Amino acid sequence: MRATVMYGAGDVRVEHVPDPVLTEPTDAVVRVLRSCICGSDLWPYASMPPSDRGRRMGHEFLGVVEDTGAGVTGLQRGDVVVAPFVWSDNTCDFCAEGLQTSCRHGGNWGHDLDGGQGEAVRVPQAQGTLVKLPAGEDSALLASLLTLSDVFCTGHHCAVTAGVNARTTVTVIGDGAVGLSAVLAARRLGAERILLMGRHKDRTDLGREFGATDVIAERGEEGIERIRELTGGDGTHTVLECVGTKDAIATAFGAVRDGGTVSRVGAPQYADVPMDFPVFLRNVTLTGGVAPARAYIDQLMPDILDGTIDPGRVFDRTITLDDTPAGYEAMAHRESLKIMIQP
Amino acid sequence: MRATVMYGAGDVRVEHVPDPVLTEPTDAVVRVLRSCICGSDLWPYASMPPSDRGRRMGHEFLGVVEDTGAGVTGLQRGDVVVAPFVWSDNTCDFCAEGLQTSCRHGGNWGHDLDGGQGEAVRVPQAQGTLVKLPAGEDSALLASLLTLSDVFCTGHHCAVTAGVNARTTVTVIGDGAVGLSAVLAARRLGAERILLMGRHKDRTDLGREFGATDVIAERGEEGIERIRELTGGDGTHTVLECVGTKDAIATAFGAVRDGGTVSRVGAPQYADVPMDFPVFLRNVTLTGGVAPARAYIDQLMPDILDGTIDPGRVFDRTITLDDTPAGYEAMAHRESLKIMIQP
Repeated sequence: MRATVMYGAGDVRVEHVPDPVLTEPTDAVVRVLRSCICGSDLWPYASMPPSDRGRRMGHEFLGVVEDTGAGVTGLQRGDVVVAPFVWSDNTCDFCAEGLQTSCRHGGNWGHDLDGGQGEAVRVPQAQGTLVKLPAGEDSALLASLLTLSDVFCTGHHCAVTAGVNARTTVTVIGDGAVGLSAVLAARRLGAERILLMGRHKDRTDLGREFGATDVIAERGEEGIERIRELTGGDGTHTVLECVGTKDAIATAFGAVRDGGTVSRVGAPQYADVPMDFPVFLRNVTLTGGVAPARAYIDQLMPDILDGTIDPGRVFDRTITLDDTPAGYEAMAHRESLKIMIQP
Repeated sequence: MRATVMYGAGDVRVEHVPDPVLTEPTDAVVRVLRSCICGSDLWPYASMPPSDRGRRMGHEFLGVVEDTGAGVTGLQRGDVVVAPFVWSDNTCDFCAEGLQTSCRHGGNWGHDLDGGQGEAVRVPQAQGTLVKLPAGEDSALLASLLTLSDVFCTGHHCAVTAGVNARTTVTVIGDGAVGLSAVLAARRLGAERILLMGRHKDRTDLGREFGATDVIAERGEEGIERIRELTGGDGTHTVLECVGTKDAIATAFGAVRDGGTVSRVGAPQYADVPMDFPVFLRNVTLTGGVAPARAYIDQLMPDILDGTIDPGRVFDRTITLDDTPAGYEAMAHRESLKIMIQP
């Protein structure tokens, strides 16, 4: 089959690789219907050292079950399923607590295993990992259902861990696909005042449609000042940090109200966070982390199926697998917000 | 009257200062029955640059109301009251949320105002700040009631913000008075497994009486390893960081379980916290901050009055006001855990 392999910064290729086969009784093989490129794929695309072996790419996909191991029940050939971006047994104590990203028998797609950006994937711990979708292979909802794999669940995780509800004001930092998903998730959780920090008008326009009440184009100190102006000097109860840079996290601490919470879901490109004495005096909490998408899929899916939300609008371009290298380039140059791949 | 003034590192004097008088209609004047020396007083005692003017000391006290301003209701001459370590109006939106440390009309004792380590104090925002105690001037409960001013409420804040309950395992870092208070608070909130990190046997013995189930004398990497050993490799759901050093906060991140919470109430002697990619992958939350003692006094007091808890056991020495300089020295040299002052 064909699959996407990254060999170093800027070097993404679509190549022939071995077809996936069942290896463990807990495996399934899934033929990919849709996958996509993640903002986090752009970090290695910018900085990965050259590698002879390469690294299989993609951790977001939905598809059709082609085969299942003897230990897999509840799934059969022909089922349309979505895969969260971390696989897990969904039975260990961490999974039971809703932290499937720390599953005792889980792991990550890609690298030396199959990635989502290919024609098919061997899925370890298939029974715990895959979620059946009540949708056909040609459903118009596939784009939105694909966001359950990562991006919408990540925005939702950010809002949930921050404690967003109808009484909390919200700042969202970042107008990328995760930031816009966080806006949608915050609105879904009842937030009525959502301040979106971003400077790409087409993106912030979608953010407004998703529920943002104010858009702040300024960054850094100016951005913090603007948030303060808009909130009577106080900042917002919650700040959803969806970028991952040191500047973004510093802005988050400046924008949060005393006693409030900063949640971060942007993969951190920093080692330390400024949690000094002034932050201590203000009782600011820092939470978030990698999203246990599996924990959220069942609760979010109904709102997609009944049309209440349409998180798939973050995809502004669909390409074929062969065009994946160009897709990386387009996202890296911000010519595209988020790219869906239809192999 | 006499009061304690710090003129620089190691230079604490008891001097004659002007008697407090009502300045604002919201003031009261309180004659001090008991005050104490805080671990946080030891930071300036170790590092304060020399000052000609000096700085009034003490932020924990209880006493008798001597006079009240025209705007103060519900308090009268002769009432025995405790003061939280930050004064507040207890009516603004932050106070209503239980964050009196961010009160819009609040402030700190000492510095250019009266401190607790003196014979009397002018109390701003007296009606919001002071809490009446159903105890006489010679009550045997004064020591425990004094801990509501800061140290026990601080331990309680640490446990509450960490989310301690009957289902959470707990590590407490630090066997100082705050750490021991955190043990007692965690036990009171139902925690059944409390691992106390400390190496002073007399202190950890009291920690065991307060509820610690295990004592870890090792520090740093060894201490983390020991916590991991005692918890099947996982660490504890909550870590209560009651020291404030960079080493202590690093230990906290090493000792916490995936998906768990580190709460810090030790005044941070650091600017940055290690919240890098591995911590992000583990979904660790960092919370805590300066404790809004006022928010907790009413709920904790009954357990002291009925003898359920006896947090005043953290005081291992009582001195007169004149001995306060020697008291600082004894605490700085760890000859005493926490010193009570009876002016």
